[in-house]
Amino acid sequence: MSTATSASARAPKQDRSRATRQRLLEAAVDCLAEVGWSGSTVAVVAERAGVSRGAAQHHFPTREDLFTAAVEHVSVQRRAELDARAAALPASGRGRHEAVVRMLVGLYTSPLFRAALQLWVAVSTDDQLRPRVLELESRIGRETHRTAVTLLGADESRPGVRETVQATLDMARGLGLADVLSDDSERRERIVRQWARILDAQL
Amino acid sequence: MSTATSASARAPKQDRSRATRQRLLEAAVDCLAEVGWSGSTVAVVAERAGVSRGAAQHHFPTREDLFTAAVEHVSVQRRAELDARAAALPASGRGRHEAVVRMLVGLYTSPLFRAALQLWVAVSTDDQLRPRVLELESRIGRETHRTAVTLLGADESRPGVRETVQATLDMARGLGLADVLSDDSERRERIVRQWARILDAQL
Repeated sequence: MSTATSASARAPKQDRSRATRQRLLEAAVDCLAEVGWSGSTVAVVAERAGVSRGAAQHHFPTREDLFTAAVEHVSVQRRAELDARAAALPASGRGRHEAVVRMLVGLYTSPLFRAALQLWVAVSTDDQLRPRVLELESRIGRETHRTAVTLLGADESRPGVRETVQATLDMARGLGLADVLSDDSERRERIVRQWARILDAQL
Repeated sequence: MSTATSASARAPKQDRSRATRQRLLEAAVDCLAEVGWSGSTVAVVAERAGVSRGAAQHHFPTREDLFTAAVEHVSVQRRAELDARAAALPASGRGRHEAVVRMLVGLYTSPLFRAALQLWVAVSTDDQLRPRVLELESRIGRETHRTAVTLLGADESRPGVRETVQATLDMARGLGLADVLSDDSERRERIVRQWARILDAQL
């Protein structure tokens, strides 16, 4: 009886802890996207999330822990969303490449990309952050590449196909960067359509 | 006689002033690339350039004046270099597209791109900087597009060609961003070759 009681007491506590962690991660991404790395501290995020500073530091001992975990958390969520939406796409044909390119480009025109961009740029002047972001970006990069290969139905054993998929993601990243300065959505949509036509011919 | 004397006295003074201005602009780009926007002030750049703070402020009354002028100055220089090197390229054929793509990508993997990237990212948290950088980037973007059209020998009256040229520059920008984190040159070279093959087919 006492075992059952303590287990049921533990479960809500774990749920609360998980919810606190999640609130911190989401507040961290918003904070990074809005005020940049130099203004993003654990204290600022804790306040934004409505969590005590002590609780925030219990979950994330350092600033680097919090912000790299935040970018990773949201990346995983966004790729899961993308997989879910991909299930609704046409199975093949011209419309498919265009829809997939639009979805991939969408990964790079979001608050998440703006947050990740702040981390990328901060690494050039922050030695503690650099190894963490490098490791994170290389993992996210590999997974995004795999997602793109699957969604585009690309056969990477054919010469040039791997590089064409990579170029698609580099182009998407460049479009994301262009959108940081001003709303680039009209120009971007024309490029997405043309890129899809190129993939129709290449893949 | 007095007119001739004052004119010849003025000339060296103008030369010195121009040299000072140039030293400030180059120090500003290096500073931005190395320490980022938050650490880049007129005083820091003046010291790096070996110029008094008063002289620096005479040339550039505000921090925004100095750094946007610096990015513009170096952009103009780099495009001039690119035009000069382009004159030595094969006039047409497969080798031409590959050489041009490599040169265009080179524009985005340089200290200048790193400096410009710091400005781009700082814009999201700095209201004074935003209109200056927007204006600058839109001008540089148009000129870089024109250069790319000329070098690629692209006929923009054909459907899709304009977007293909734009996509080439967006991809180059995305490759530049990937190179900020770590040396991406091997992967980049494979993508350059593949993209050149695609342009051979598309243009």
